[in-house]
Amino acid sequence: MKGLHLIGDLYNCAPGDFLNSAKRLRKLCLDACQASGLTVLGEHFYQFDGFDATQVGGATGAVVLAESHLAIHTWPERNQATLDVYVCNVTADNSAKAEALYDTLIAALKPADILAQHVWRGKDLPVAKAA
Amino acid sequence: MKGLHLIGDLYNCAPGDFLNSAKRLRKLCLDACQASGLTVLGEHFYQFDGFDATQVGGATGAVVLAESHLAIHTWPERNQATLDVYVCNVTADNSAKAEALYDTLIAALKPADILAQHVWRGKDLPVAKAA
Repeated sequence: MKGLHLIGDLYNCAPGDFLNSAKRLRKLCLDACQASGLTVLGEHFYQFDGFDATQVGGATGAVVLAESHLAIHTWPERNQATLDVYVCNVTADNSAKAEALYDTLIAALKPADILAQHVWRGKDLPVAKAA
Repeated sequence: MKGLHLIGDLYNCAPGDFLNSAKRLRKLCLDACQASGLTVLGEHFYQFDGFDATQVGGATGAVVLAESHLAIHTWPERNQATLDVYVCNVTADNSAKAEALYDTLIAALKPADILAQHVWRGKDLPVAKAA
């Protein structure tokens, strides 16, 4: 279960388009997974209503991959989104595919600012005992 | 989109039960989300076949929450699993609910060893510029 988890908190994204449409966001994600060589097992996306009649609602979704998962949540009223791409490297090193998927989604959402955290998951030896 | 992301890489879990059944793992996750006061918008779980006839297959899934997401992947042949619970605190502090969900799933999977990483998502000011 060792693997790479790419975490992106995205600020000042390109307005509209993918941020306010679960339908478009879903297609973007599924196409990007396929283009990156990752295997989609299933997904669920959801369209939020806006907080009031003046706002569009955000979109949220998760894609279950054979290699682990992709999760994305958007706040169009702030032009923000969060992105998670996690791949396990059990039978092959899928890190390059994860980076490709992450980069494709960043290129589509066009954030001016990114708070990125790359987390390496799993260790050869556990470092903490459960209580 | 500031929030808490609980990452757990779980070693030496209780064999069988939830690790090798997407059906049981799904019910565990959905019940735990509800018990923690989180709002399930949808989910997808998938049952893997074993690598060969001597092995049972793992389970994998993601739950899309109004507050963000839960993702879980298991390797019953190693008694391992990975767990992600991410909640945003946009309209309320959902951290306690995330901790409750995480604790419930840990109690069910019974790992002897946990590699835990608690990642605080989002900042008041972005710290990195996109290229």
